[in-house]
Amino acid sequence: MKMKNKFSVYIDSLQERITSDLEKLDGKSKFIKDNWEREKGGGGLTMILENGDVFEKAGVNVSKVYGNLPESMSKLLKVDQSHFFACGISLVLHPKNPMAPTFHANLRYFELYEHNVLKDRWFGGGLDLTPYYIFEEDIVHFHKSCKKVCDSYNEGFYSKYKRKCDEYFWNSHRNEARGVGGLFFDYCRESNEMNIDNWFSFISDLGNSFLKSYVPIIKKRKDLDYNNSHEKWQQIRRGRYVEFNLLHDKGTLFGLKTNGRIESILISMPPKAQWVYNQTPSKGSEEEKLLNILKSPKKWT
Amino acid sequence: MKMKNKFSVYIDSLQERITSDLEKLDGKSKFIKDNWEREKGGGGLTMILENGDVFEKAGVNVSKVYGNLPESMSKLLKVDQSHFFACGISLVLHPKNPMAPTFHANLRYFELYEHNVLKDRWFGGGLDLTPYYIFEEDIVHFHKSCKKVCDSYNEGFYSKYKRKCDEYFWNSHRNEARGVGGLFFDYCRESNEMNIDNWFSFISDLGNSFLKSYVPIIKKRKDLDYNNSHEKWQQIRRGRYVEFNLLHDKGTLFGLKTNGRIESILISMPPKAQWVYNQTPSKGSEEEKLLNILKSPKKWT
Repeated sequence: MKMKNKFSVYIDSLQERITSDLEKLDGKSKFIKDNWEREKGGGGLTMILENGDVFEKAGVNVSKVYGNLPESMSKLLKVDQSHFFACGISLVLHPKNPMAPTFHANLRYFELYEHNVLKDRWFGGGLDLTPYYIFEEDIVHFHKSCKKVCDSYNEGFYSKYKRKCDEYFWNSHRNEARGVGGLFFDYCRESNEMNIDNWFSFISDLGNSFLKSYVPIIKKRKDLDYNNSHEKWQQIRRGRYVEFNLLHDKGTLFGLKTNGRIESILISMPPKAQWVYNQTPSKGSEEEKLLNILKSPKKWT
Repeated sequence: MKMKNKFSVYIDSLQERITSDLEKLDGKSKFIKDNWEREKGGGGLTMILENGDVFEKAGVNVSKVYGNLPESMSKLLKVDQSHFFACGISLVLHPKNPMAPTFHANLRYFELYEHNVLKDRWFGGGLDLTPYYIFEEDIVHFHKSCKKVCDSYNEGFYSKYKRKCDEYFWNSHRNEARGVGGLFFDYCRESNEMNIDNWFSFISDLGNSFLKSYVPIIKKRKDLDYNNSHEKWQQIRRGRYVEFNLLHDKGTLFGLKTNGRIESILISMPPKAQWVYNQTPSKGSEEEKLLNILKSPKKWT
């Protein structure tokens, strides 16, 4: 089977498995399915659960698009008469309980054609965690789970992709990280060490690990007590999530500039956000502990 | 008096008058004053009122900054060995009652020096209204007030600056206006018709009209009944305000890129915002009426 078909089938089944498990975990709200078409080729399936018992907003989006490459991208990639095929799955899970972190993950595959001949192809993706309150054991569990998948392919992957993740999810205008990181990788091409099937195997092992990385954390935190002040802090921090996505996230900005489907791109937006002038947590508070951790990337394994 | 001093004195007094009047109108919360300095020259006074009876968040910011021009801007303006002086006042008033519109206004003056000689100077600014529910008489009042000031200087100003405002506050990725417009102008330089004192007079007349343009509207709407569903709609629409400011607003993006003072730049952010997937108002609803009006700029006078 061609890689684009193999990966397409994989992300469809992953979307199905993940949404089914998250629905069971939530117990109240159901995912609604929204099929959409892209005018210039392809389409996708957006699945969204809102106002659940566990998840305030959970979006799982699969898209498969193709067509001529926008001129700006052709120039960038130095190709002529080119077209592309791109497909991927992305998840953003915003829990209701402020003690539980937001989870984001994405897996994608890109094929580039010049004069109808396949010229280049690569995988990209990653996963990362954005807590509102710090439970170190949760972050350690998450990073260990990331490392386990990486290590079975290459002992250098974890530290390399963790560093890329810390660099990417940096809210430069605030001089702080969006969250506590995870993995981020792009342009994963065939090489002597890893042929395209090896990359597919790595990417799909990682996709299969998403629930194992995140669900134990949310199970531990979803029923913890919280009050209005915890909720306010969650919403203020979700304001930072908005700032990152609209100011810095390349995927979001690329999608908006190329007339992508707005509601599917902005599915990553948190359900609720607040902006309070010059909000500064009190000394020694749990909120200050979070900010200290976000000031510079930590080692978690 | 030099124009930069004249305008500096004016914006200080305008900030004082506006905050004093808004505080009286609110009746509950007070403005807090936050003086700040800019590392590379100048500083400002940010005044902010939060959680009032009338205003959920009201920010009035004055800044006066100077220094060497960033290289990217020197290139753009085709100057060598240049420095600048810039000062301005900006206001964003987010009322509590969803029936009352958000008000934004800004007046600014820029001087450009090359080899220590004044090379260019201009005024810019504007004001605009962002309603959540449509009361046509409010919008008409606002635009008439804008037109009155314009007409006493040049009969062509209103239609020209109204058009610029409609173009500027366009949320292109949503294909809708941020609000119902007002005035927007920039690079207002000396000419045969308007010398720099005429421009100062126009700008200050406009500044003096801000409260007359807005306060009668908020007085009419601040005590109207509303429910949770109106409040939710207000917060969803404030999400669009966030999208505009972080994706399209040149002032915000310029400020963030040049390491401006984050809290003063992002004072324009609404207190609370929501993102609901694919939110579509029901046919014939008041919410749909707003969306229809935002689809294309209207004539209001």
